[in-house]
Amino acid sequence: MIEANVNGERLWQTLMEMAKIGATENGGCNRQALTDLDKQGRDLFINWCEEAGCSIQVDEMGNIFARRAGRNNSLPAVLTGSHLDTQPTGGKFDGVYGVLAGLEVIRTLNDNDIETEAAIETAVWTNEEGARFSPAMVGSGVWAGNFERDAVYSKTDKQGLRFEDELRRIGYLGEQPAQARPLAAAFEVHIEQGPILEAEEKQIGVLTGVQGMNWYDITFTGEPCHAGPSPMESRKDPFMGLHRLLAALYQLAENNAPWSRVTFGDIKAEPGSYNTVPESLTICVDLRHPDQTTLNAMDAELRRLTKQIALECQLEYHIHQEWTSEAVSFDSQCVNAVRDAVKNLGYSHKEMVSGAGHDSVYLSQVVPTSMIFIPCEKGLSHNEAENAEPADVTAGANVLLQAMLSMANHVPS
Amino acid sequence: MIEANVNGERLWQTLMEMAKIGATENGGCNRQALTDLDKQGRDLFINWCEEAGCSIQVDEMGNIFARRAGRNNSLPAVLTGSHLDTQPTGGKFDGVYGVLAGLEVIRTLNDNDIETEAAIETAVWTNEEGARFSPAMVGSGVWAGNFERDAVYSKTDKQGLRFEDELRRIGYLGEQPAQARPLAAAFEVHIEQGPILEAEEKQIGVLTGVQGMNWYDITFTGEPCHAGPSPMESRKDPFMGLHRLLAALYQLAENNAPWSRVTFGDIKAEPGSYNTVPESLTICVDLRHPDQTTLNAMDAELRRLTKQIALECQLEYHIHQEWTSEAVSFDSQCVNAVRDAVKNLGYSHKEMVSGAGHDSVYLSQVVPTSMIFIPCEKGLSHNEAENAEPADVTAGANVLLQAMLSMANHVPS
Repeated sequence: MIEANVNGERLWQTLMEMAKIGATENGGCNRQALTDLDKQGRDLFINWCEEAGCSIQVDEMGNIFARRAGRNNSLPAVLTGSHLDTQPTGGKFDGVYGVLAGLEVIRTLNDNDIETEAAIETAVWTNEEGARFSPAMVGSGVWAGNFERDAVYSKTDKQGLRFEDELRRIGYLGEQPAQARPLAAAFEVHIEQGPILEAEEKQIGVLTGVQGMNWYDITFTGEPCHAGPSPMESRKDPFMGLHRLLAALYQLAENNAPWSRVTFGDIKAEPGSYNTVPESLTICVDLRHPDQTTLNAMDAELRRLTKQIALECQLEYHIHQEWTSEAVSFDSQCVNAVRDAVKNLGYSHKEMVSGAGHDSVYLSQVVPTSMIFIPCEKGLSHNEAENAEPADVTAGANVLLQAMLSMANHVPS
Repeated sequence: MIEANVNGERLWQTLMEMAKIGATENGGCNRQALTDLDKQGRDLFINWCEEAGCSIQVDEMGNIFARRAGRNNSLPAVLTGSHLDTQPTGGKFDGVYGVLAGLEVIRTLNDNDIETEAAIETAVWTNEEGARFSPAMVGSGVWAGNFERDAVYSKTDKQGLRFEDELRRIGYLGEQPAQARPLAAAFEVHIEQGPILEAEEKQIGVLTGVQGMNWYDITFTGEPCHAGPSPMESRKDPFMGLHRLLAALYQLAENNAPWSRVTFGDIKAEPGSYNTVPESLTICVDLRHPDQTTLNAMDAELRRLTKQIALECQLEYHIHQEWTSEAVSFDSQCVNAVRDAVKNLGYSHKEMVSGAGHDSVYLSQVVPTSMIFIPCEKGLSHNEAENAEPADVTAGANVLLQAMLSMANHVPS
């Protein structure tokens, strides 16, 4: 292990500085992808990286790569990074921590005059959250070959604004192709976004994989009719289907407890009027399980239940699968680099699987990848009250530093 | 009874002509209040009325009164009318039939050179549906003193456009004060918007009253958190509250069957993102019962259930009562005028209570009022497939003609 420690106070200050951009009244952040605030956050990050001596590349998805050269720049680089965009009622740490921990690694190498064999890079991946433009993780997804660039470009937000137009508008439609290149390793440090590390009083999560997840739009279509005269029993009421679907899917989660998750994130009624039974109702469903076989069985059950409910309620139904991400196992060499760093630094730790999707899911398909978690207060995330302890923020960055160093100094035979 | 019959074919043609304004692909109408299409409909109606020799008055709520003078114009007039605005996926008859049947009564009096003692008027009441600007029936409501004009003026649609601005924009912000004046009687002929007359093969409904109805916005507020890592049992999930509320309120309707109605017309999740448990969920509830005592008991039960569910699901809750309309009994003299007309004309009929709100609810508070129903196909309304038989459309207008004549010729002692 190389004797070097990150400057925890400096890292914390950069986090708080970035958090001012899109700061909400309740102490959170609303800095959604490709907004003016996203641009401000990106500009600030690039400014800091240039001050730290990095060269900057922006690709055609707006992904940013800040590079600190190595001794042998023909070697594949060691990359870290995450995202700067947030949920509408997001916090100060989700994503941002991973980006700025990467910057802190570079600043620490500068402070200690450490030269690495391979270059070190920290990346900002565009639109990880998928809050403004669905689906999520499209910056890393296009880069890793999971999405077509032009299909993502034509996605629109709720106001009908196009992804490509907004990317160009904020000045981050770069020229470099958004496609994977050889990397020695990719690491991402992130808050857990769940309660496990805090409950078990562990400082570091050593991630071995990510749970599988599916997003659906389920639509029930009935027959609009007047709220007053139409007898209850003669209605074709989409809310009656919803009533049954919510019950069935909460039960499905319970049947696959404790690791299954079902979340209803958004819903829309058409036409949407007090005194008319709606013609249709569309609900967004997010279904997760760490075991892909179990998730597949839950998917089949969701489809069977939706069909059965529609039939029994005399409704039409449609299931649109908006997005899917299979359960992931991380690269064993990268996981070992994290394990060794944690052991050498003496932090308490737990091996675990991520419940949330991350850019590392896509990266893991094309480069050796793993992740590091730190605890967050009450497990809260996608929430303005999202919080982490400065000591844990420092610990995670130190693990990242040592894991990156071990891979960057590893000269191929 | 005066020997005169309406021209059913002409009435049908005016209905089909008006239905072209805002016609939808599926044969319905989308002519929402204070839109350009509403203006076109109003202009066409006024044109027809002026051709029939009527004088026109528009009040400051945009209510239109087309008047055919009587022999003694110091007598209070006999009024009919309804509304021209529709639901977003509305039909060709709801409201429009009542307005154009009034025009057909005037045309029939002209054809037969009949002079009435009191003047005859047909009215268009603004924004009966409440689809674009909530609440419903504000034109008649302000006129009858149930709403403050300025409070209605400041209501906004989903795009944030103000009622007053839109009324002025389409040129129907009139100068006459929107307030009740003495009338001998007010009648409204309308499609049933329910299945009863069709099922019992009756041609005319003689209305004795209107059921009571309450509109609520019920909001559950929880704690937004990430869809993946947050264990199901630790969530404060507004959809869990919704799941319980839908079950409880459908059960409440069943407990008060067959006359109770519960309708969920619209719903909104905040912030509305696939992978975040929403912070809050607001659902629109429409609760109805023809017996006011029963409706009051249902209201109390709705409040008790909402509170209990919020408590059990660890959610905050808020109940906003958007609107209420008490159960109504119509004026016995007006009801008798309709009864006599139906008897003299020999139509099959049924005495009934309306399941839907109508402008007549507000009118009945300030002038002697009653209503006439005709069957509609499958009881469908607030639906593009809304339909009525030409023979029934003619029959309803004949009943209206005779009821109005009997009240207009009735010289006070």
